[in-house]
Amino acid sequence: MRKLRLGMVGGGQGAFIGGVHRIAARIDGQWELVAGALSASPDKARASGAELGLDPARTYTSYEEMAAAEAARADGIDAVAIVTPNHMHAGPAVAFLHAGIHVICDKPLAATMAQAEEIAQAARDSGKLFILTHNYTGYPLIRQAREMIAKGDLGDLRLVHVEYVQDWLAEETDPDNKQADWRTDPARSGAGGCVGDIGTHAFNLASYVTGLETERLAADLDAFVPGRKVDDNVQVLLRFKGGAKGMLWASQVAVGNENALRLRVHGTKGGIDWAQENPNVMTFTRYGEPRQMLTRAGAGATPAGLRGTRTPGGHPEGYLEGFATIYAEAAALVRHANDGTPLPEGVHTPDIEDGLLGMRFIAACIDSSSKDAAWTDL
Amino acid sequence: MRKLRLGMVGGGQGAFIGGVHRIAARIDGQWELVAGALSASPDKARASGAELGLDPARTYTSYEEMAAAEAARADGIDAVAIVTPNHMHAGPAVAFLHAGIHVICDKPLAATMAQAEEIAQAARDSGKLFILTHNYTGYPLIRQAREMIAKGDLGDLRLVHVEYVQDWLAEETDPDNKQADWRTDPARSGAGGCVGDIGTHAFNLASYVTGLETERLAADLDAFVPGRKVDDNVQVLLRFKGGAKGMLWASQVAVGNENALRLRVHGTKGGIDWAQENPNVMTFTRYGEPRQMLTRAGAGATPAGLRGTRTPGGHPEGYLEGFATIYAEAAALVRHANDGTPLPEGVHTPDIEDGLLGMRFIAACIDSSSKDAAWTDL
Amino acid sequence: MRKLRLGMVGGGQGAFIGGVHRIAARIDGQWELVAGALSASPDKARASGAELGLDPARTYTSYEEMAAAEAARADGIDAVAIVTPNHMHAGPAVAFLHAGIHVICDKPLAATMAQAEEIAQAARDSGKLFILTHNYTGYPLIRQAREMIAKGDLGDLRLVHVEYVQDWLAEETDPDNKQADWRTDPARSGAGGCVGDIGTHAFNLASYVTGLETERLAADLDAFVPGRKVDDNVQVLLRFKGGAKGMLWASQVAVGNENALRLRVHGTKGGIDWAQENPNVMTFTRYGEPRQMLTRAGAGATPAGLRGTRTPGGHPEGYLEGFATIYAEAAALVRHANDGTPLPEGVHTPDIEDGLLGMRFIAACIDSSSKDAAWTDL
Amino acid sequence: MRKLRLGMVGGGQGAFIGGVHRIAARIDGQWELVAGALSASPDKARASGAELGLDPARTYTSYEEMAAAEAARADGIDAVAIVTPNHMHAGPAVAFLHAGIHVICDKPLAATMAQAEEIAQAARDSGKLFILTHNYTGYPLIRQAREMIAKGDLGDLRLVHVEYVQDWLAEETDPDNKQADWRTDPARSGAGGCVGDIGTHAFNLASYVTGLETERLAADLDAFVPGRKVDDNVQVLLRFKGGAKGMLWASQVAVGNENALRLRVHGTKGGIDWAQENPNVMTFTRYGEPRQMLTRAGAGATPAGLRGTRTPGGHPEGYLEGFATIYAEAAALVRHANDGTPLPEGVHTPDIEDGLLGMRFIAACIDSSSKDAAWTDL
Repeated sequence: MRKLRLGMVGGGQGAFIGGVHRIAARIDGQWELVAGALSASPDKARASGAELGLDPARTYTSYEEMAAAEAARADGIDAVAIVTPNHMHAGPAVAFLHAGIHVICDKPLAATMAQAEEIAQAARDSGKLFILTHNYTGYPLIRQAREMIAKGDLGDLRLVHVEYVQDWLAEETDPDNKQADWRTDPARSGAGGCVGDIGTHAFNLASYVTGLETERLAADLDAFVPGRKVDDNVQVLLRFKGGAKGMLWASQVAVGNENALRLRVHGTKGGIDWAQENPNVMTFTRYGEPRQMLTRAGAGATPAGLRGTRTPGGHPEGYLEGFATIYAEAAALVRHANDGTPLPEGVHTPDIEDGLLGMRFIAACIDSSSKDAAWTDL
Repeated sequence: MRKLRLGMVGGGQGAFIGGVHRIAARIDGQWELVAGALSASPDKARASGAELGLDPARTYTSYEEMAAAEAARADGIDAVAIVTPNHMHAGPAVAFLHAGIHVICDKPLAATMAQAEEIAQAARDSGKLFILTHNYTGYPLIRQAREMIAKGDLGDLRLVHVEYVQDWLAEETDPDNKQADWRTDPARSGAGGCVGDIGTHAFNLASYVTGLETERLAADLDAFVPGRKVDDNVQVLLRFKGGAKGMLWASQVAVGNENALRLRVHGTKGGIDWAQENPNVMTFTRYGEPRQMLTRAGAGATPAGLRGTRTPGGHPEGYLEGFATIYAEAAALVRHANDGTPLPEGVHTPDIEDGLLGMRFIAACIDSSSKDAAWTDL
Repeated sequence: MRKLRLGMVGGGQGAFIGGVHRIAARIDGQWELVAGALSASPDKARASGAELGLDPARTYTSYEEMAAAEAARADGIDAVAIVTPNHMHAGPAVAFLHAGIHVICDKPLAATMAQAEEIAQAARDSGKLFILTHNYTGYPLIRQAREMIAKGDLGDLRLVHVEYVQDWLAEETDPDNKQADWRTDPARSGAGGCVGDIGTHAFNLASYVTGLETERLAADLDAFVPGRKVDDNVQVLLRFKGGAKGMLWASQVAVGNENALRLRVHGTKGGIDWAQENPNVMTFTRYGEPRQMLTRAGAGATPAGLRGTRTPGGHPEGYLEGFATIYAEAAALVRHANDGTPLPEGVHTPDIEDGLLGMRFIAACIDSSSKDAAWTDL
Repeated sequence: MRKLRLGMVGGGQGAFIGGVHRIAARIDGQWELVAGALSASPDKARASGAELGLDPARTYTSYEEMAAAEAARADGIDAVAIVTPNHMHAGPAVAFLHAGIHVICDKPLAATMAQAEEIAQAARDSGKLFILTHNYTGYPLIRQAREMIAKGDLGDLRLVHVEYVQDWLAEETDPDNKQADWRTDPARSGAGGCVGDIGTHAFNLASYVTGLETERLAADLDAFVPGRKVDDNVQVLLRFKGGAKGMLWASQVAVGNENALRLRVHGTKGGIDWAQENPNVMTFTRYGEPRQMLTRAGAGATPAGLRGTRTPGGHPEGYLEGFATIYAEAAALVRHANDGTPLPEGVHTPDIEDGLLGMRFIAACIDSSSKDAAWTDL
């Protein structure tokens, strides 16, 4: 099978998540980066393309130009990865979808609900794939947890606790810190700061693993750092359809935490506990029995838990491998869409519906918080 | 110095917390159990007293009789420990206080606010000591955390997260399980189930360590187990005076947890993380520096952290030792009250005010929950 | 039942382990300290006795005097606890045994093999109990591990790895540090330093849990700190009867360790892993199944694991409780010896044979090390 | 810069380590697999090549043919990765070196010392690069530990403890398990089983991080599983030049362990503790100060610790990323060798000397063990 051809919008020199997408795309050998509009600055776009070994003819200085040119080529890209700040997702997403090119897009879906709906409309109209990189769903033990819950290992779910806490924005932002700068600027990140950047990851993970539908939430958003224009801490009570309850905490000011995403789910028959910073272990307890330490690809691994693994238990896989699974499954979906190549079992990725749900989550949190944490429908 | 004479109400055969109090009282050699009204059943009271080696003359069958008799003896008890179910705290507490005898009482203070206020009135009227065994405040690293926060090691506090989760009531209660039985009966436990039994511990611990005053809370209480008459799960948003925010979760149905009390506090300059099940370690991070693993009595221990320790670092102390510290400090307070023996530095215990605050916490949670988790003043 | 009367030799002001013995004796309410020869210095002996509330008539200034006087009293002590430095065990042990008084003695048994044999002879001649406080055998999960191995849960044993590492002697000893001073003086500690002080604990624990008999060992002893007269680091290869192999490491210079005693045992069918600093958890794996986290008194606890527990799972017990179990079982043995009170199931303590085995271990290590770590029979 | 062209010998369908090498080579985008002699079976070689998208013209059925053909092409491979069982390293290694092609080879160097020396001779004669994939040296915190020790953060080293324990060979080997089969066959693995497969990793890691030179060792090798022809458990005492001491344990029968490689180093001023299964954390203690939890790319990271990282702290990197660092540095070395491209700071990989040292380690262990664990020079 030929490698699929990938284009990229954003991700030029100095960017963070673009490099992550490129590694993720490489790991399983399914994708080859062949084109890019890597920066809004023409010079930087060209320098970045050269550094990545792109053909100068396919190093574009605008995404509009790139969408048109690539759509016209016989060897045009199979998909584009959009790795720009949030307010710059909708433009390229719509352009590429309209050009008939599948889209892989970083999260959250957009900076505003209007942009999000534009993208959704374009996705529907085009019939092309829209894949959102909620990468934490790619962890094997997360897949396993989802499967275990679906087949009833935890019984009826009662409780969902998810938290995603960091401390890198605990002080005033250095304007030279590019990552911090746009994330704390509502014009670029959207109205949500922490809630959009990592709160959506937490919410997506909880929804993905449990399959529960959130009915209402009550949210308290804070901007603890003086002068900050977006929230940097989010506390949410969740009520799920069917009666389960949840709590969600996301923070960028919790000193002592790097990237502490943790999910706990409790049902009538069992409970699980998983933390992203050591993602190769998950605690699982059947009621009344000793706690088990399940390991990635170790004893007790389920089919879904084994599907995305590349190495035996004890050989830790991490963030990049989880991200790579999104790209590997995107490849399978693209091949299937392109020429009907059969889909391997279990292939699925976060999609436009997940993206819209995330946007509604952000909006509901902001709305609730503005009303003194009143209950707000999702 | 002579040993102090202790009496006990409750704690007869088959009881749990009474035995804990007795061990705690013995550990530091300050107390001697000499009298008891150990059970409402005369036969059981006598058998229990005999088993404990009590003088039959001081094995009473009612607390009223005991209060009167002990007050009349030259060698009467110095203090009484009340270890009955919640609805049976007020009767003996008032009786012993009125008889001029110091009271050590298990938590929560009472089953109802009216009872709580009766006790408080008796404590004020009598001028006698009232000590509430919120035993988790006795852990050395908890004392150290409180001291570190008080002297500013964490900067201005922003966030408090406390949780106390268990799973022992995840299914319908066996009526033969005496501990479970009264705790799930509102007539004996009070209107709060989980919120009163362990939610108050969590709230007390957070308040004790941070020194923050809770202004308002929004609480969602659930009784997940069919037929249960009191809550078995509590989720609370907290707002503190000065702007800090908090979350509190207490549960008795979170499968996979034994007695998982955990406290995290984050400020502008640092953060701490402590968990009761391995209480000899606490994580402390100064912003921008590597996380430190502080150990009980280990490197970096503060005066308050060293005060209540009996063994060097690496020789784990646990639940009973923390509880014993409450009894050791109760002894110091009683000696001071009795004859002016100077108080050693740092001696303090949870008192009637903490008990009343806990009762207000329970009431506010129940009230908030009944109003769809509306914000409720404490 | 009356409390048993305990005497103590050593343990005066400034001592460490004497205080531990006293707490251990108090925890379960079986013992009352009534007499002592607490120091070789008469003034200190008297002051220490007063501080502990001893009757001045039973505050002795020599152990010989104490043994004679207590043996002559109708209310004489039931047992004596010997908590002096190693070279001072034999004198009092022999004196009290000859006086017909049971002995509880700190480890290692003595400073020299000759002293050890004198004690053993006296124990045999007197028919009195000799109990050695290898306190780590009192931990509930250690009891459980022993029982699990005995009933075959691990299959045939292949591997035993035990280590006991500290760092408190990593630098030259401060002569004012009383604990460090005698432990690094061969005249008082015996020829073994680290090997005697903590190596024997490690060896005892491994032997106790596995039931394996050590046939030969090869030991490398070092004194890393300049000027140190005894070893401060011990590395040993072990060969057990039946073919199992082992490694033992004890150190007082391993910077970053407080009191890190850890035991791992692997057999054909399973493996366990336990560490003293968090003694309420033990990992257990059946081959091919997920690792289990067994907790003290938690799901899966065995009868032996439950016997010595005082609190439910999740309420951590520690070093002092494990030590107290030795005293509780000593009480049962003393009562049984005194008047035939039936022994509760499972009661046993380390005894003179364990003491002699420990002395042979020390001697074999020193001998092996002096011969370039040659294999040495035990 | 163009991608480097990689060939592979071994790694056909059903192989394990070949796939790991391919992912590792892809992660940083420096290599492109273009040729292979993937299996000794022509059919399997062709099928494997097709699966990997290789040009059929460069899918060889013998390494001799491949070495000749690739050396003759203008666009021939820049380096070959040898991922066959141990006894098949020397043939291809010598062939490619003689053909003037750089070699990347899996460990241990060979099945016999004679083969090892042949490779070394060819490396010397050819002047080409020989890179041995002791991949665990690629972990960022391992690089950091090495740098910290080199600059004296631990003071003078006293103790090195390394262990690498697994359980996957705890029972008789299933002949259908290809990985297990050749590793337990001395004709293919060499005389050492466990000692060669993972003992060499442990030894290499300890030597790499500490910089210590091993003078002598005493080793006890066992084959615990009935009928096993090579060792499956290794216990070693180590003596280093300068007086430091060490212990090494490698096992494939320690039930409950997946891939538990752990290194502890203690010096006069500090100690470190690192475990491969959660490689993003390392404990570091300065004597007398609280233990620190250093994280990959987190607070306190050193230049060497930052060099090989791709993501910020809290985004776990694992086994494949560490392996990829070997490939990234191999690329830098190849570019430097090919055309003088300047070497980035800090680039280094395990080389032929490390390979020879590993072979001497295996031989010394086997020799020592055959003489009842006698001290044996390395």
